[in-house]
Amino acid sequence: MDENKSRRISIAVDMDGVLADTETHFISYYEGETGVRVDRNTLLGLPENLAFPDKTAVRRYVNTAGFFRTLPLIPGGQQAIQTLMRDFDVYIVSAAMEFPLSLYEKKLWMEEHFPFVSWKNIVFCGDKSIIGTDYLIDDHLKNLDYFRGKPLLFTASHNIHVNHHHRLNNWSEILLYFENLRNSGD
Amino acid sequence: MDENKSRRISIAVDMDGVLADTETHFISYYEGETGVRVDRNTLLGLPENLAFPDKTAVRRYVNTAGFFRTLPLIPGGQQAIQTLMRDFDVYIVSAAMEFPLSLYEKKLWMEEHFPFVSWKNIVFCGDKSIIGTDYLIDDHLKNLDYFRGKPLLFTASHNIHVNHHHRLNNWSEILLYFENLRNSGD
Repeated sequence: MDENKSRRISIAVDMDGVLADTETHFISYYEGETGVRVDRNTLLGLPENLAFPDKTAVRRYVNTAGFFRTLPLIPGGQQAIQTLMRDFDVYIVSAAMEFPLSLYEKKLWMEEHFPFVSWKNIVFCGDKSIIGTDYLIDDHLKNLDYFRGKPLLFTASHNIHVNHHHRLNNWSEILLYFENLRNSGD
Repeated sequence: MDENKSRRISIAVDMDGVLADTETHFISYYEGETGVRVDRNTLLGLPENLAFPDKTAVRRYVNTAGFFRTLPLIPGGQQAIQTLMRDFDVYIVSAAMEFPLSLYEKKLWMEEHFPFVSWKNIVFCGDKSIIGTDYLIDDHLKNLDYFRGKPLLFTASHNIHVNHHHRLNNWSEILLYFENLRNSGD
């Protein structure tokens, strides 16, 4: 076994809501369909599927061909992943199995926006409790609460009132967190 | 957290070569393409991609639409997974990310043959070293050698000379192994 590899700290990074801006995409899709531009402030603290006036909309969009392929990027994510990869084993971990049609779209999205991430470091799963990395950066409690390593909460409108995980508000804060971690281990 | 769930032993089970009979499928595809029926004995101890007279064949088949969707079953796997699920957390873990077109086909194959396995317990990944289960049943050393739990080698023609992992030759032996494990923990 590669001793260097086995000693590197590993980080699992969620896709939707952390690398991919699902929130903005939901708002765009909703406006395109209904003509109603939902104010982002009205989404605060609500589960994504209940945050829009039409409660069936979000579930419909995530089952629409093309939705996951065309997701915009969360600012700073691309550069941050490249930076983290220098010192850590970074895995992109998405609970994609719930939406089988998204599997191929998500892989193509990764190839387009994160061509520097090997297929070896991409995981599409259901229950993330199986993921054995040291850290998990995610916006959903259903993933963070059962994670066996150190969970890190990435801020999204729906999780704004959560206070039982270490919160990181954006990719700059994530980079600072892991820079401090790396320096403390030097 | 569900205390019962957190105490159950977890088992990751590979798809190709363990649940799905890739070997038989390669032989069938090869015969269909070339008219040559390859004797299974000639595959013993050789890497799958080098075992057939035309060394480009296997790589071509795994990139052919329909190959993964139509894989036959390894005998005993379906019933054994149902049995194991009574006492263990069973995850189906496939290194599918190398062949993006296979992702959807593999999910459909699971739905057809293992409808009793929840999408929450299916994982498509690259490098399996990220999998944090207690056991991994797999036919490939590239997965077993870097697994952090207890690796179990499922017999296939290509791994017949391997002797550094606990070997289980078929699904009956797997069931017996975990029945003994369960009884020892009673």
